[in-house]
Amino acid sequence: MTALARVAVLGAGSWGTAFAKVVGDSGRDVVLWARRPEVATAVSERRENPDYLPGIRLPETVSATTNAAAALSGVDAVVLAVPSQTLRGNLADWKPLLPPGRTLVSLAKGVELGTLKRMSEVIAEVAEVPSAQVAVVSGPNLAREIAAGEPTATVIACSDHERALALQAATSNDYFRSYTNTDVVGCELGGAGKNVIALAVGIAAGMGLGDNSRASLITRGLAETSRLGAALGADPLTFAGLAGLGDLVATCSSPLSRNRTFGEHLGRGESLARAEAANHGQVAEGVKSCLSICELGERHGVELPIADAVRRVCHEGYSAREMAKELISRAPKAE
Amino acid sequence: MTALARVAVLGAGSWGTAFAKVVGDSGRDVVLWARRPEVATAVSERRENPDYLPGIRLPETVSATTNAAAALSGVDAVVLAVPSQTLRGNLADWKPLLPPGRTLVSLAKGVELGTLKRMSEVIAEVAEVPSAQVAVVSGPNLAREIAAGEPTATVIACSDHERALALQAATSNDYFRSYTNTDVVGCELGGAGKNVIALAVGIAAGMGLGDNSRASLITRGLAETSRLGAALGADPLTFAGLAGLGDLVATCSSPLSRNRTFGEHLGRGESLARAEAANHGQVAEGVKSCLSICELGERHGVELPIADAVRRVCHEGYSAREMAKELISRAPKAE
Repeated sequence: MTALARVAVLGAGSWGTAFAKVVGDSGRDVVLWARRPEVATAVSERRENPDYLPGIRLPETVSATTNAAAALSGVDAVVLAVPSQTLRGNLADWKPLLPPGRTLVSLAKGVELGTLKRMSEVIAEVAEVPSAQVAVVSGPNLAREIAAGEPTATVIACSDHERALALQAATSNDYFRSYTNTDVVGCELGGAGKNVIALAVGIAAGMGLGDNSRASLITRGLAETSRLGAALGADPLTFAGLAGLGDLVATCSSPLSRNRTFGEHLGRGESLARAEAANHGQVAEGVKSCLSICELGERHGVELPIADAVRRVCHEGYSAREMAKELISRAPKAE
Repeated sequence: MTALARVAVLGAGSWGTAFAKVVGDSGRDVVLWARRPEVATAVSERRENPDYLPGIRLPETVSATTNAAAALSGVDAVVLAVPSQTLRGNLADWKPLLPPGRTLVSLAKGVELGTLKRMSEVIAEVAEVPSAQVAVVSGPNLAREIAAGEPTATVIACSDHERALALQAATSNDYFRSYTNTDVVGCELGGAGKNVIALAVGIAAGMGLGDNSRASLITRGLAETSRLGAALGADPLTFAGLAGLGDLVATCSSPLSRNRTFGEHLGRGESLARAEAANHGQVAEGVKSCLSICELGERHGVELPIADAVRRVCHEGYSAREMAKELISRAPKAE
């Protein structure tokens, strides 16, 4: 595997931009593709993405363009930083431009509604590449903190260890530390499950419950995601790592987490419609993914009491108080 | 194993008192032993422990005494709720009074300085009972929240599963949920390690670092505790459960955690002496246990970079900033 001298990052939201900065600060050339010309211009001329990371100066190694063909020309790896539910459509457009054999890296988290596919599966399918050519980045990665140069660790997962090592080298600098992992399924499920658990944590917080309840929901939520992962072929220990526990704890701690905040509204007894209104008219990601995660659980015969409780609060008018009561009164058992 | 109709709880601090309430609320008779007569009187007459759990009403099933022989007479289980560094001395005094064959339950967390023994080992040694007779309770258990009746889960660990089941039944009610586990070593090390990690999390917070750093320290801290546990015969998955992750997340979230608060002082660049002064003249538990934990690591050939960094900040005048820099610049590797 040759070193990654030049990397394309497709998508200039906060995480795409922060990731471009990480790669640029690791001494690689980065081309950031932005949908909107004003973002590309601001990055190229002012070294800043004022919409998503205001006040953060990007290194000279990062350039930007709205031209996907130019962004993808001669790159050694392609990072996909678009939202999970639009990834399929975007990638279909870019497919003819992808340099053959290069690692495709997913920054998106989630399970595609309807198909129940993980993002790396969608990428391999649409780009028509073997799954060993697709890598996933996941961990406790609040974009704003990374962009500010705070010490952060992440996981680079790829079933082809050589590809993971090349990406690790391209994402290592004095504030960012990457660990390799070959368990792509575990890393992706950890990321998808965390939004649902963050919603449950938010609901508990909105009800006024304290740190014991929160810690129990995090722990038991991770345990059920881990059981689902095991049924899908993941290594249960992945969930105890940065892409499972790490990502979950960062999300559940951050006051910026949309899922947690959304859950707080529900926990205070507000309706889904009202929580949506308070969230600038958007439902939180976990509201959608609890459906696909429960469906995955049913298909594989895995009990997911917390995801199911969230699903019923969000979609069946079940109250937060009933959810808490039911979770505590389940039959006693071994851990 | 007969049902536990009557249980002694020796030690009337906040956790001992809250645990007595849990058992009492599970329909068992509890005798709480207090060192100070005014505490025993307040519990018996006013159903309250005003020093440790003011405002919490204890159930009629809980009585209190300062007479250890009376407390231990005719009980089916004995719960030890005294501080870890005084447990050996207290238990030696109580030994002649212990009813034979009854389960001895440890609520204390820590590794004894000097001997490097876990609390269950100290108990088995001093009481001269087989280790299968000793159980451990550990989990995300902030006493104040449990006493307030907030939903909480915990782990009851005992190598004798029948004893764990009897304890589970005696600690199950509408706000408290116990899970059994046979991995005593893992549960105890999780509890001991968390104080050190909470100190590291506090140091990072004191330096102004954010949620990524915190989540990474929690995750990598748990991973190193888990490696140490595996070397000592624990099941690594225990650390992903309530007695590992759950306890750690609750402690690191709680503004009441002495270890976290102590670490914040150090993270702001204050000396150990000044942090101690701010903590009412007491050093945090993690300041002591980082020594025994690092010593255990050395003895078993396990690298513990976070515990070692905490040890050097606390005992070798190393600065918090050097600690952060060193943790991020370690050689890249697999997770």
